Amino acid sequence: MATTVVTGAAAIRSGLLPPVGCVTETADFAGAELPGLDALVFGGHDIAGAAPMAKRAEELARAGVVPPWSPAAVAGELEDADAEIRVGLVAGEPGTLREQADRLIADLVSFRERRDLERVVVVNVASTEPPFPRRPEHADLGALESALAASGDALPPSSVYAYAALRAGCPYIDFTPSTGVRLPALDELARRMGVPYAGSDAKTGETLVKTALAPMFAARALAVRAWSGTNLLGGGDGATLADPQASRSKKISKDRSLTEILGHRVEGETHIDYVRPMGEWKTAWDHVLFEGFGGVQMTLQFTWQGCDSALAAPLVLDLARLAARAHETGESGPLTALGFFFKDPIGVREHRLALQYELLCEWAARLGARA
Amino acid sequence: MATTVVTGAAAIRSGLLPPVGCVTETADFAGAELPGLDALVFGGHDIAGAAPMAKRAEELARAGVVPPWSPAAVAGELEDADAEIRVGLVAGEPGTLREQADRLIADLVSFRERRDLERVVVVNVASTEPPFPRRPEHADLGALESALAASGDALPPSSVYAYAALRAGCPYIDFTPSTGVRLPALDELARRMGVPYAGSDAKTGETLVKTALAPMFAARALAVRAWSGTNLLGGGDGATLADPQASRSKKISKDRSLTEILGHRVEGETHIDYVRPMGEWKTAWDHVLFEGFGGVQMTLQFTWQGCDSALAAPLVLDLARLAARAHETGESGPLTALGFFFKDPIGVREHRLALQYELLCEWAARLGARA
Amino acid sequence: MATTVVTGAAAIRSGLLPPVGCVTETADFAGAELPGLDALVFGGHDIAGAAPMAKRAEELARAGVVPPWSPAAVAGELEDADAEIRVGLVAGEPGTLREQADRLIADLVSFRERRDLERVVVVNVASTEPPFPRRPEHADLGALESALAASGDALPPSSVYAYAALRAGCPYIDFTPSTGVRLPALDELARRMGVPYAGSDAKTGETLVKTALAPMFAARALAVRAWSGTNLLGGGDGATLADPQASRSKKISKDRSLTEILGHRVEGETHIDYVRPMGEWKTAWDHVLFEGFGGVQMTLQFTWQGCDSALAAPLVLDLARLAARAHETGESGPLTALGFFFKDPIGVREHRLALQYELLCEWAARLGARA
Amino acid sequence: MATTVVTGAAAIRSGLLPPVGCVTETADFAGAELPGLDALVFGGHDIAGAAPMAKRAEELARAGVVPPWSPAAVAGELEDADAEIRVGLVAGEPGTLREQADRLIADLVSFRERRDLERVVVVNVASTEPPFPRRPEHADLGALESALAASGDALPPSSVYAYAALRAGCPYIDFTPSTGVRLPALDELARRMGVPYAGSDAKTGETLVKTALAPMFAARALAVRAWSGTNLLGGGDGATLADPQASRSKKISKDRSLTEILGHRVEGETHIDYVRPMGEWKTAWDHVLFEGFGGVQMTLQFTWQGCDSALAAPLVLDLARLAARAHETGESGPLTALGFFFKDPIGVREHRLALQYELLCEWAARLGARA
Ligand SMILES: NC(=O)c1ccc[n+]([C@@H]2O[C@H](COP(=O)([O-])OP(=O)(O)OC[C@H]3O[C@@H](n4cnc5c(N)ncnc54)[C@H](O)[C@@H]3O)[C@@H](O)[C@H]2O)c1
Ligand SMILES: NC(=O)c1ccc[n+]([C@@H]2O[C@H](COP(=O)([O-])OP(=O)(O)OC[C@H]3O[C@@H](n4cnc5c(N)ncnc54)[C@H](O)[C@@H]3O)[C@@H](O)[C@H]2O)c1
Ligand SMILES: NC(=O)c1ccc[n+]([C@@H]2O[C@H](COP(=O)([O-])OP(=O)(O)OC[C@H]3O[C@@H](n4cnc5c(N)ncnc54)[C@H](O)[C@@H]3O)[C@@H](O)[C@H]2O)c1
Ligand SMILES: NC(=O)c1ccc[n+]([C@@H]2O[C@H](COP(=O)([O-])OP(=O)(O)OC[C@H]3O[C@@H](n4cnc5c(N)ncnc54)[C@H](O)[C@@H]3O)[C@@H](O)[C@H]2O)c1
Ligand code: NA
Ligand code: NA
Repeated sequence: MATTVVTGAAAIRSGLLPPVGCVTETADFAGAELPGLDALVFGGHDIAGAAPMAKRAEELARAGVVPPWSPAAVAGELEDADAEIRVGLVAGEPGTLREQADRLIADLVSFRERRDLERVVVVNVASTEPPFPRRPEHADLGALESALAASGDALPPSSVYAYAALRAGCPYIDFTPSTGVRLPALDELARRMGVPYAGSDAKTGETLVKTALAPMFAARALAVRAWSGTNLLGGGDGATLADPQASRSKKISKDRSLTEILGHRVEGETHIDYVRPMGEWKTAWDHVLFEGFGGVQMTLQFTWQGCDSALAAPLVLDLARLAARAHETGESGPLTALGFFFKDPIGVREHRLALQYELLCEWAARLGARA
Repeated sequence: MATTVVTGAAAIRSGLLPPVGCVTETADFAGAELPGLDALVFGGHDIAGAAPMAKRAEELARAGVVPPWSPAAVAGELEDADAEIRVGLVAGEPGTLREQADRLIADLVSFRERRDLERVVVVNVASTEPPFPRRPEHADLGALESALAASGDALPPSSVYAYAALRAGCPYIDFTPSTGVRLPALDELARRMGVPYAGSDAKTGETLVKTALAPMFAARALAVRAWSGTNLLGGGDGATLADPQASRSKKISKDRSLTEILGHRVEGETHIDYVRPMGEWKTAWDHVLFEGFGGVQMTLQFTWQGCDSALAAPLVLDLARLAARAHETGESGPLTALGFFFKDPIGVREHRLALQYELLCEWAARLGARA
Repeated sequence: MATTVVTGAAAIRSGLLPPVGCVTETADFAGAELPGLDALVFGGHDIAGAAPMAKRAEELARAGVVPPWSPAAVAGELEDADAEIRVGLVAGEPGTLREQADRLIADLVSFRERRDLERVVVVNVASTEPPFPRRPEHADLGALESALAASGDALPPSSVYAYAALRAGCPYIDFTPSTGVRLPALDELARRMGVPYAGSDAKTGETLVKTALAPMFAARALAVRAWSGTNLLGGGDGATLADPQASRSKKISKDRSLTEILGHRVEGETHIDYVRPMGEWKTAWDHVLFEGFGGVQMTLQFTWQGCDSALAAPLVLDLARLAARAHETGESGPLTALGFFFKDPIGVREHRLALQYELLCEWAARLGARA
Repeated sequence: MATTVVTGAAAIRSGLLPPVGCVTETADFAGAELPGLDALVFGGHDIAGAAPMAKRAEELARAGVVPPWSPAAVAGELEDADAEIRVGLVAGEPGTLREQADRLIADLVSFRERRDLERVVVVNVASTEPPFPRRPEHADLGALESALAASGDALPPSSVYAYAALRAGCPYIDFTPSTGVRLPALDELARRMGVPYAGSDAKTGETLVKTALAPMFAARALAVRAWSGTNLLGGGDGATLADPQASRSKKISKDRSLTEILGHRVEGETHIDYVRPMGEWKTAWDHVLFEGFGGVQMTLQFTWQGCDSALAAPLVLDLARLAARAHETGESGPLTALGFFFKDPIGVREHRLALQYELLCEWAARLGARA
């Protein structure tokens, strides 16, 4: 998806593609004083041995995710981004967590200074991690700092990235369901550093549609009796989720929405199946059994067929721009108005898509009104 | 559907059924000071020779629309309502429109007085009429009054019913896509009489889901390229809509929502097929073709399988209660906050379901706050 | 389902219902010399404490599985069948398997004699058992007979029923995926006793549609890349299958068809979810990803929404009649021509529905031609 | 589609693509002594001003119909075929039909001789024509020959093509629902010339699936109450079918199958909607309402999402090879064994896909057994 972000952004900046899918390019955000797409510079961390972006872009073009002409058309920008990718952090790496964090902080600061950037927003788009057990040292910053020095397994990589970002004064976004910034100790750090953050797990498929539809049942006093879903997906993310541990993280974040919107747990299972030949495509089929007047049972089914990266990539741009502007205007802590983008929004319980959008627009208006 | 309304309301009042599907029975309306379900008394007009409610209720029970035990359990209430049904007005009836209206007015006034009712709300749930051509005398009340005296074909029956209701001081609701109250002359009458009205065409299926889903595409800057729909339905309404003229009325009111929400006309046809053996059930299949980041085409499909009367009946109760309370608090003219209930709301252009619901709730709060 | 069988058969015999769903009532079987529906007498085994048929029929009527009027209309026949139900055999019952089998044999013989029946066909429609591990004593009849005397756990109940049926000279049908007659030792017994048998696991939903559709891909040289399925079901069978062990039996029998028809294992998972509020209804959604000319990927999806008992019950009648006639004409061992009815047919590898039907019709013609 | 045929065949011949979708490349046809794919030489007629194949292949590659690398890889073969395209015949062309036919005959003979071909098979893959009214001169060959000389409007272009093909001794295939060879006079001509023919209207989508599924209902004695279908398609064919006259031809040929398989007309409409942005893709949604045991109503829905040309192109190759071999072995008149390929097979009433396939295979075996 990272490659899709860079390729698409470059093509839009060059006027080769319209900004379809970019929420922040619509009229509702015209007055929010966001940084222009032109103003963005891309860099990142990836694990050692990852293929260069130019190669990945070719693969995406063959799979129909980015236009066939685009890898060549934006080759310069891909090379430029590639040059800013540093070796990332993986679970079980030697050294203390502090040493690991320091390395990441140095990368972030160096990127900001070398490229003369006003600020850097860190977006976690790495592979989903399994759920990470809560520990006492997650509860407050002091305890966490001690743990960083002493031991190598107090945090999963996603949280070390989050720690490093906040310490470096960079807004941090959890695009995945990994633990990341979602720890009391890191919230404390964010507030202390005056840095905003948001997450987690971008909603781009089944949950997006669910949070558009579920409020309809609630508003119409129709009683949802069971909501069942099956997700078929290929691609790198699909392969990761074929591991039941990783897919457990995903299911937990997917299920929360329905419970919040309908006010009670609803029967029904959610399956996530890795179907390798689907490549970058994902299909979700949902079956909703509901009861109406007189106890009559009725159903709604939907099938969503989407291209994973095409759905997610523009949101990375949106989130980076919105977080940058929030930082600029002095916000810190969880950006609850970004709940619109996430399956499992941090710091807010509103899951109804339309109302999340209203909150986002109102906040964007306030962002624009500030100095 | 009228029979389902009476049967269901009676069963709920007796505690035999929970009020599933009744919007006004949810917590959001607890403070609106609406008349209780107990306070409602049913009557109406039907065309000569219509079967008695008890017989229709039996048919509905056999079709699984109302519970098998319910016709017997509420036999008294069905008889009571039946006794209040008067011969209705059909197109091409002899006599001037004034004479026809006067007959209807007399029925309404007599019902109100005999039953000692605070007010009567008229809800048009008759068969859908074909579109009726606009005429000069529809434009203002004076011209309309003259036309009533002189001619028999200036108004379709639905509008004579609306005229009669308003003249009799009764709030009027267009549950169907027929012309009804949707004429400038009748708006003038409503305001002059201090009577509120609302319409038109209750949204209970494809359009309900459409107006829940379409805002998702808009908010996410996804470009809807085509929205195609097929509606299969049996029942009395299906038979009426098998007539292409009547179904034209329905399609017009169904299409408006999408254009309003997405801001432009969208390609794609809407079919309404009468499938006799489906009985009271209707199925809508919609196919949405949309474009995302990088021009990638994706699709969403849904299948809605609902029982027509079970979906519509509770809304008749909701609308009657809300209109009654609006009348009580002195509102007149179009009740735009009721847009939530209609495919083609009068006097308001908001079609996004979630925002319609917010408007409705805010209005309900204001209703409750009044004397 | 047993109650649906008896209720439906009685209603058809009385001319109250047409024989829809009964394969053997179609023209293709007119010459097969099958016993008439009138000639059937119902009896069975159920576990202690099971509700009487009249009560179950009432429940089925409320759930819309049998017509509302039918329980009263066929009350006599239900009572009659109920009077012929004996206490069945459950896992872990005390005593040797021989003692258990003898009890069942006595019941069968007594039923045949008391009711003066030409023959009794035993159809296993009990709850699905978990897979039962294969053992050495299943391999031949001598070893099995010794094991019956010595130990209590060499066979699951379904196989004791099968043993008893065959020993009593009764054709035996495995309507479920339980082990039942599917053991070499029991095949030996069937041949020795001159008794035919068939199984297993009636195909009435997803697999039925699969075996109608999969041959299309094969015949058109379209390469199926993945076939994924989700089954939602309530009811007694759904509750049983909520146990992963039992559902494993079902999945194994469901998957075999596809492999046989396409000639290779196909990617894709099959989920079976118990969704309690679905009651007697089941829904299967299947997603087929296939490749055509030039490597283009395409998809077929289907949603099957059926009433479990209504789909299965007439097949019980069909199988009983066909097995009875086969017995009458002297067939013994597996009735491979009955593969049409089963997810996992015994003794035959043809899974293509249309060809199974041809085989069935040819065999029916032969049945009719015999003395 | 013609461009897809040539591109795909060339890629398969060069070993660049596997022959997925080619029925005659499967094991069942290994012994039929068909001409090899290598042996085929492509030519044709197109209307004046049609784009060159190389340009069309580029468009198809951009649309994902043929692989991105294929237009370049087979450029030579595309040029070669292009050089053999002659100006076709359109409705209302000046001159007598005889003159028109003679021009086409000359083209065919010249192609056969210049390229030193054993035989030429003509496959009509031109745009679908509206239904053409039957006339007396269609009834026998003598009358038709007179009409050709005298008048310009006795036949639609498709039938002039068919006449020319047969007169030139070329087998003729109606891949479209146009009138083509489907006239008694042309059947007479074919028999007289010793030339085989087949048609009409290749089945590649909704009807293909219908004829795989409908026999399931028939075999299971399930009563189909209504079968409704909506077809969405873009592309050239979609644009043609946006004309209600042309789409009428298509609907007639689509509907016949169901009636034949189920033995009676079934309720339900079939819609064909032109949805321009779908490009080469087509989607069919079908809803089947059926009744089972006890009168319970159930449903099956399917959604077929296919690439039109990718589905159809390999069948053109199959039909050409099979018709060539039939001609070689001396068959003339309608090739009823080719019914498997057509929505509305000429000369045969079997529409059940699986049985059509059996007939095809048996015939292929006979073809192979001949000298
Ligand atoms: N695509 C979507 O619609 C969507 C939506 C919501 C969330 N997400 C999440 O976004 C993430 C990325 O999705 P994707 O489709 O690009 O997956 P992907 O598998 O294609 O890419 C993941 C990338 O992360 C890198 N990586 C793995 N571990 C790393 C580490 N410790 N440090 C740095 N890099 C690491 C991998 O090398 C790879 O390049 C996933 O977690 C996914 O669940 C995606
Ligand atoms: N059921 C829904 O979900 C739904 C939703 C929105 C709108 N509607 C509309 O509500 C109306 C009623 O639906 P239904 O399902 O009850 O239909 P129906 O055909 O079962 O009942 C219509 C009733 O209207 C009566 N009628 C016809 N003309 C009349 C006249 N001129 N005066 C008085 N009575 C007359 C008929 O005798 C009949 O009893 C239809 O117009 C339908 O389009 C229904
Ligand atoms: N309904 C279908 O479409 C269908 C299709 C194929 C197979 N089947 C199989 O048929 C069986 C019955 O289905 P159902 O829907 O009637 O289920 P159900 O749960 O409603 O009924 C099962 C019955 O079996 C009885 N039973 C359980 N253990 C028994 C034992 N050891 N001896 C005697 N009786 C016993 C139970 O008391 C109950 O009455 C299941 O195994 C199911 O998998 C059903
Ligand atoms: N694609 C399928 O799955 C499929 C299946 C069955 C039948 N068909 C039929 O095959 C035909 C071709 O489909 P397509 O998708 O290639 O359509 P298309 O519109 O892309 O191509 C039709 C071609 O026919 C040419 N043409 C039109 N009139 C002609 C004439 N009188 N003489 C010679 N050429 C003429 C046009 O110039 C064009 O090149 C259509 O009739 C379609 O209904 C297609
Ligand atoms: Na799973
Ligand atoms: Na239509």
